Amino acid sequence: MTTSTSELGIQSTQPNLQQSDKSAVALAQHYQTVRRLSQRLCQPLLIEDYCLQAMPETSPAKWHLAHTTWFFETFILKPYVKSYQVYNAHFEYLFNSYYNAVGAQYPRAQRGLLSRPSVDQVFSYREYVDKQMHKLFTDTQSMSNKEVLQRITLGCHHEQQHQELFFTDLKYCWYQNPILPAYQEKPLKSATPTDELRFSKVSSGLYTIGQNSTNNFSFDNEQPAHQVYLQDYLIGQRLVTNGEFLSFMIDGGYDRPDLWLADGWTQIQEKENIHAPLYWQQLGQEWFEYTLHGLQPLDLARPVAHISAYESDAYARWADCRLPTEQEWEVYVEQPADLNSKEESGQFLQDDHLHPINTNKITSALIGRLWQWTSSAYSPYPGFKTAEGAIGEYNGKFMANQLVLRGGSCVTSKSHYRHSYRNFFYAKDKWQFTGICLAKDP
Amino acid sequence: MTTSTSELGIQSTQPNLQQSDKSAVALAQHYQTVRRLSQRLCQPLLIEDYCLQAMPETSPAKWHLAHTTWFFETFILKPYVKSYQVYNAHFEYLFNSYYNAVGAQYPRAQRGLLSRPSVDQVFSYREYVDKQMHKLFTDTQSMSNKEVLQRITLGCHHEQQHQELFFTDLKYCWYQNPILPAYQEKPLKSATPTDELRFSKVSSGLYTIGQNSTNNFSFDNEQPAHQVYLQDYLIGQRLVTNGEFLSFMIDGGYDRPDLWLADGWTQIQEKENIHAPLYWQQLGQEWFEYTLHGLQPLDLARPVAHISAYESDAYARWADCRLPTEQEWEVYVEQPADLNSKEESGQFLQDDHLHPINTNKITSALIGRLWQWTSSAYSPYPGFKTAEGAIGEYNGKFMANQLVLRGGSCVTSKSHYRHSYRNFFYAKDKWQFTGICLAKDP
Amino acid sequence: MTTSTSELGIQSTQPNLQQSDKSAVALAQHYQTVRRLSQRLCQPLLIEDYCLQAMPETSPAKWHLAHTTWFFETFILKPYVKSYQVYNAHFEYLFNSYYNAVGAQYPRAQRGLLSRPSVDQVFSYREYVDKQMHKLFTDTQSMSNKEVLQRITLGCHHEQQHQELFFTDLKYCWYQNPILPAYQEKPLKSATPTDELRFSKVSSGLYTIGQNSTNNFSFDNEQPAHQVYLQDYLIGQRLVTNGEFLSFMIDGGYDRPDLWLADGWTQIQEKENIHAPLYWQQLGQEWFEYTLHGLQPLDLARPVAHISAYESDAYARWADCRLPTEQEWEVYVEQPADLNSKEESGQFLQDDHLHPINTNKITSALIGRLWQWTSSAYSPYPGFKTAEGAIGEYNGKFMANQLVLRGGSCVTSKSHYRHSYRNFFYAKDKWQFTGICLAKDP
Amino acid sequence: MTTSTSELGIQSTQPNLQQSDKSAVALAQHYQTVRRLSQRLCQPLLIEDYCLQAMPETSPAKWHLAHTTWFFETFILKPYVKSYQVYNAHFEYLFNSYYNAVGAQYPRAQRGLLSRPSVDQVFSYREYVDKQMHKLFTDTQSMSNKEVLQRITLGCHHEQQHQELFFTDLKYCWYQNPILPAYQEKPLKSATPTDELRFSKVSSGLYTIGQNSTNNFSFDNEQPAHQVYLQDYLIGQRLVTNGEFLSFMIDGGYDRPDLWLADGWTQIQEKENIHAPLYWQQLGQEWFEYTLHGLQPLDLARPVAHISAYESDAYARWADCRLPTEQEWEVYVEQPADLNSKEESGQFLQDDHLHPINTNKITSALIGRLWQWTSSAYSPYPGFKTAEGAIGEYNGKFMANQLVLRGGSCVTSKSHYRHSYRNFFYAKDKWQFTGICLAKDP
Repeated sequence: MTTSTSELGIQSTQPNLQQSDKSAVALAQHYQTVRRLSQRLCQPLLIEDYCLQAMPETSPAKWHLAHTTWFFETFILKPYVKSYQVYNAHFEYLFNSYYNAVGAQYPRAQRGLLSRPSVDQVFSYREYVDKQMHKLFTDTQSMSNKEVLQRITLGCHHEQQHQELFFTDLKYCWYQNPILPAYQEKPLKSATPTDELRFSKVSSGLYTIGQNSTNNFSFDNEQPAHQVYLQDYLIGQRLVTNGEFLSFMIDGGYDRPDLWLADGWTQIQEKENIHAPLYWQQLGQEWFEYTLHGLQPLDLARPVAHISAYESDAYARWADCRLPTEQEWEVYVEQPADLNSKEESGQFLQDDHLHPINTNKITSALIGRLWQWTSSAYSPYPGFKTAEGAIGEYNGKFMANQLVLRGGSCVTSKSHYRHSYRNFFYAKDKWQFTGICLAKDP
Repeated sequence: MTTSTSELGIQSTQPNLQQSDKSAVALAQHYQTVRRLSQRLCQPLLIEDYCLQAMPETSPAKWHLAHTTWFFETFILKPYVKSYQVYNAHFEYLFNSYYNAVGAQYPRAQRGLLSRPSVDQVFSYREYVDKQMHKLFTDTQSMSNKEVLQRITLGCHHEQQHQELFFTDLKYCWYQNPILPAYQEKPLKSATPTDELRFSKVSSGLYTIGQNSTNNFSFDNEQPAHQVYLQDYLIGQRLVTNGEFLSFMIDGGYDRPDLWLADGWTQIQEKENIHAPLYWQQLGQEWFEYTLHGLQPLDLARPVAHISAYESDAYARWADCRLPTEQEWEVYVEQPADLNSKEESGQFLQDDHLHPINTNKITSALIGRLWQWTSSAYSPYPGFKTAEGAIGEYNGKFMANQLVLRGGSCVTSKSHYRHSYRNFFYAKDKWQFTGICLAKDP
Repeated sequence: MTTSTSELGIQSTQPNLQQSDKSAVALAQHYQTVRRLSQRLCQPLLIEDYCLQAMPETSPAKWHLAHTTWFFETFILKPYVKSYQVYNAHFEYLFNSYYNAVGAQYPRAQRGLLSRPSVDQVFSYREYVDKQMHKLFTDTQSMSNKEVLQRITLGCHHEQQHQELFFTDLKYCWYQNPILPAYQEKPLKSATPTDELRFSKVSSGLYTIGQNSTNNFSFDNEQPAHQVYLQDYLIGQRLVTNGEFLSFMIDGGYDRPDLWLADGWTQIQEKENIHAPLYWQQLGQEWFEYTLHGLQPLDLARPVAHISAYESDAYARWADCRLPTEQEWEVYVEQPADLNSKEESGQFLQDDHLHPINTNKITSALIGRLWQWTSSAYSPYPGFKTAEGAIGEYNGKFMANQLVLRGGSCVTSKSHYRHSYRNFFYAKDKWQFTGICLAKDP
Repeated sequence: MTTSTSELGIQSTQPNLQQSDKSAVALAQHYQTVRRLSQRLCQPLLIEDYCLQAMPETSPAKWHLAHTTWFFETFILKPYVKSYQVYNAHFEYLFNSYYNAVGAQYPRAQRGLLSRPSVDQVFSYREYVDKQMHKLFTDTQSMSNKEVLQRITLGCHHEQQHQELFFTDLKYCWYQNPILPAYQEKPLKSATPTDELRFSKVSSGLYTIGQNSTNNFSFDNEQPAHQVYLQDYLIGQRLVTNGEFLSFMIDGGYDRPDLWLADGWTQIQEKENIHAPLYWQQLGQEWFEYTLHGLQPLDLARPVAHISAYESDAYARWADCRLPTEQEWEVYVEQPADLNSKEESGQFLQDDHLHPINTNKITSALIGRLWQWTSSAYSPYPGFKTAEGAIGEYNGKFMANQLVLRGGSCVTSKSHYRHSYRNFFYAKDKWQFTGICLAKDP
């Protein structure tokens, strides 16, 4: 299957394989596809762009390229390939993100200071590891080791996560430059105007959420599948638009403390003094939005993006709604009637704000556009166990102070997505591709 | 009923009334009892002690005395007494804590800078408001207004919350002074050594938690009662002791990143460089603990106190356990077989670390000693609604980034407590009387 | 001689003795006078006021009372009285300001957290030390020890410095309280309108500045006297007034970067966002100034006060002038013709902004009103030597990053002042009683 | 004259012209030489290295290249070339350093975030401006305008300052990378061991310092020449060596508060927790020093470098010396007998720590090695006037809180240096090539 991501000039050929029944050959193909995409995403970049780090939470493109490679080297080549020679002894320290069980880490906030290794050297590092991985794929003994296959699959998903971060981080870093560089020069197409927001009703009862990971890949934080009891609820069939959010602003939304969570009010009033979403700029009377296509006139029909959980919550309160819990969200989108896979497939990694939203398609309109804040804290599912060793640090240790986001975004790869996917960020964060899904009580 | 709080020299006479069927007379008595206790708690203080503020989160005793009075003035006397004259026009600004709907607030972090009004003036303010309240209690029309009665009841609970904060804040502020003042000079009694920690099992199923507030008072955040589905779980029958926590420390607990949530690891390593609970001090080879009785040798049988959620979580992981959810905690303590009201009643507001824990009494051993961190984020219950106006700011706007604590503590009034009580603090906080309750999967 | 400080209700009886030829009796009298004044200055304070610390640079009144006592205990009683018993072992740590040679110090920024020892205990401490000092004064052997006499004299000057800080710190702390307490309820008298500022000319040549401390007391930083060569210069005969400074403000002075030193521009624009002197408030169209007499209408004829060196420098540049160097200032005021001791004596420690300035008296109009920023960095004089031991820390270690101020202020004791006095603060500081003296090139 | 800077692989051909009698041709040649050197210095850099900014005080190499070009465009081409077309309208904002009279500036701390314009575009910008400047040089009318000639000369000196900053900033940024890149791979030569430090005596008297700028270029801050009176003093004939500084460290120099200025003690103890110079590293028992040649064994005979004024002052106090004033320093090096121009010329911009110091040559041993901290605050000379307009911001507005450094360094161009040169940095700064010159009283 070929997903045309023509707006960004990328020909993506990610197979939508089911990982578990994949042969070694299929896995090798998938590996190659994912690895190649990371590099193709970088094509519009100058060498200078690879090194940007505008805040501690963002990493330079070069670092993403090296770290994802380090992941394969550290968790697959080193433990499973006997005679493996590390490419460069410094890299264990420089490109370890947060795995304390592996060792100390170069300070996260200073990744932008690593002019060396150069971009060229990082590409050579990738080539070296890819060759070693290629050998491993042809080693039948290794390929019959389930743990090896699982880790390679994990490594591919890990790299796909960083492909998404590549976009979010680059966009944030470029925004600090008054030149406002564009990833793709071609202007964004106008979105189709939306109908009024309609809500679907879900009835109370016991539901199962999460994954037992029998066939399909899932991260440990989606496991185990378990029952939850939900009350009746309504959930919005599409995301909140720029036009709707502008109405909130015009109504004084950013200046009414009654609409805001206390920590959010502190952020917008005392710390940041903000009165509009992160990438919005008012020039004269007109609003513009910085996108991967550069500064564009604000399209009122597109979903509002780069919104903190506080902003989402304040908007929801203004609209006499609330944010859904992650359980409500997952139960809703898993309802078979509403799914339309064709439509859904068109919304993933393609451009910044993607296609105009077609409100005729219901749950699918929540998928692959913008991650949606839920009101659920990022906590372990009942019965959750962290893996032994460094891999156990992948997700579990972040289960504090963050909220779950659901739905994937326009910079998420389709083959990386599933409905049980639990993304997580701090409520204050805005540099991800985040939007607003509403819920309410009947 | 009289609760003897002899260790602190306080004769408390709080009636354990059911608020809803209380006559105006009973409510007036309750009001008087609560108000009087606030002042009696201050008896060991010097004038100088009333003004301390060691961090933004703590407030001076004087401010607590004034703010609780302001609450009755603002939410009862001003709206419901026609000719009411405010005591001092400055106080609306000075003693408003966080009610934006009432108006701007004097900066929280600077409350310790208010040498004026003096302690004497604050006591006069209390006397003035008490007199006005006394008049109100004798006004039959007002006393037949359900909203007035509810607000007075809320005001009493509000003041009881601040009585607890009075202790937590004073203890923290005094600890900054190397003289280490004691609230009560008499040394702490030794606790009875505990048996090994045993766990109770609760079976999976649908349970109801929360309050519909038909008869008994509850805060809005405990409402509405609703069904939850729980998996099988085990829960510890008593709190973790100092001795058990010391074993964790000796085993390198503070230096093993695998035991810690990432944000907790950052706190203990980068920000605070800590290796023991907040009030522990090692002098030579011996450990001591600062208590309201001054610095005391560490009593291994007492429950470990003043513990952050991160420390609780790290200890639990070290012990192959986890923290309970708030639902698990409430369902367990509501089980009728385990309750022993006599035992339970003896653990509330009395001294710092209270009586030795009797492990024969099961769930009661979790009540009225130390608030226990749950793994549950402080979120709205399904169907939660905030009240209109300023009163709606009481609880709802804090439902972000905090965790629920359960169980009451030795500085909680018994008449203020109920099993559905949801206290909430940030995971990093340690100055409250917090301890560790463990849970695990079967 | 009796200086009437009637506006503050203080009867000061400080003898203007020459220390070196003072008998032990005279020194004892002087000691008693100085010590008593510290306590009399506190009369308008409530107990609550003694504990205030609004920023690290300010200390509570209670701390000043204890620290000045600690100074006599540490530097005189302990080394020179054999059987001396310290009053309280904790005080060595609690009331040491910055003498590393004596030992570690309680953190400066937390002095406001010391509710204990109480105000009463601090007064008892003072009484205890005064008694011991009284005994020492009657010990003829000690009184013949020149070092003892010198240290007592130093201790008295040290306490007089803290009397001045008592006012500056209290004023700053009270200003944080919207009630704006007054030290003296009686309103300020209007100042006599001033004539246009006239300048005196001083001719180039070699001059001697500083003190060799033969007869009169001086701090080590005023020593040794030495020759300097000065170019011709003009110096303003009186301080800049509020009215003149208001003209600067109306002319956009706070918004014109060309008038400001770079570090000053950063302070007013980025850090503090200020557009008026520290204690000025505009209510409607009118300007007011917070004084020790409470909030008062701005008196245009009084000298502008509580001005940073940056503000002084910006004003001077706006007025086509500059600040004098400390050498220029000292040479000018030492010129005998201009001195008028009667006039001069009336300007010291009396009230906040003191008497209206009489511009007929020339150099005297610079003395005892407000400390004046010079353009001179606080550096050692040629040949300066620090004393051995802890006393050597008194002045020398602060000779970095600060500027010299000259002239004394209305909260300086007359017996503490001399023309060679070098006060020193950071250019950004505003809470001292500082004003503007102008100079320019012919 | 050709200065061989072979150790860094640079052939520098800077003419040591007297600017004032230079013909337009000579000035054009000088311009070309200076401009070319900026680019040649960049030869060892990767594109990635051009973008580094490790702290707000350092700027990326790319920014230095653009800003120096912007200086010629802004102060010469725009005002003096009628039809001049700016290269890119964004650059006025992006590459303005601190000239408020020109307009707002891109935030200094974020210069490292400007991936665009690219390095290529910056070189094109340089080429464009150079061409325009070339035209100007051939315009006889402009070349007869003294102001134009002066500004071009100033622009060349400005660029030479940034050449020096290029090295200091690059070194500091690379040091953040554990790979520790080398600017020049060839190892440093060992220095010739030094004799014991000898002092020269200068007699008291009236001396003239500063420049009246009749023939030679000088910055405004060196003007006007004026008389100063100095006491007798002694000054060290060479810089303090690594070996001598190591003795200070071994003697506990970093842990003795009596040796430190208070602000310095705060820096080393509370803020930075440092116990050695910035670029020193102890591996096992051996000390190493990071240099532009990479990490090198510490050469005890080389002068100690990258030293704050606090460290210099503490060392001086330990050695029973003090730092010289800037007047003492200038008077000493201007003494004709001690000058040896051949020796002196060999110490400038060549390599990191330069040639071994030859102690036979007296004052020359202070020149062109490392800037030396003086004890003099950076203040205006008597009679100093700032220029009108933006050029007036060049030096004057920084005359607060900084100290004067003298002597030039191994990364200063010889044609840029003169004995009256007043460099200035904050006492805490260490990333410049700074060393220690000692003085003392007879």
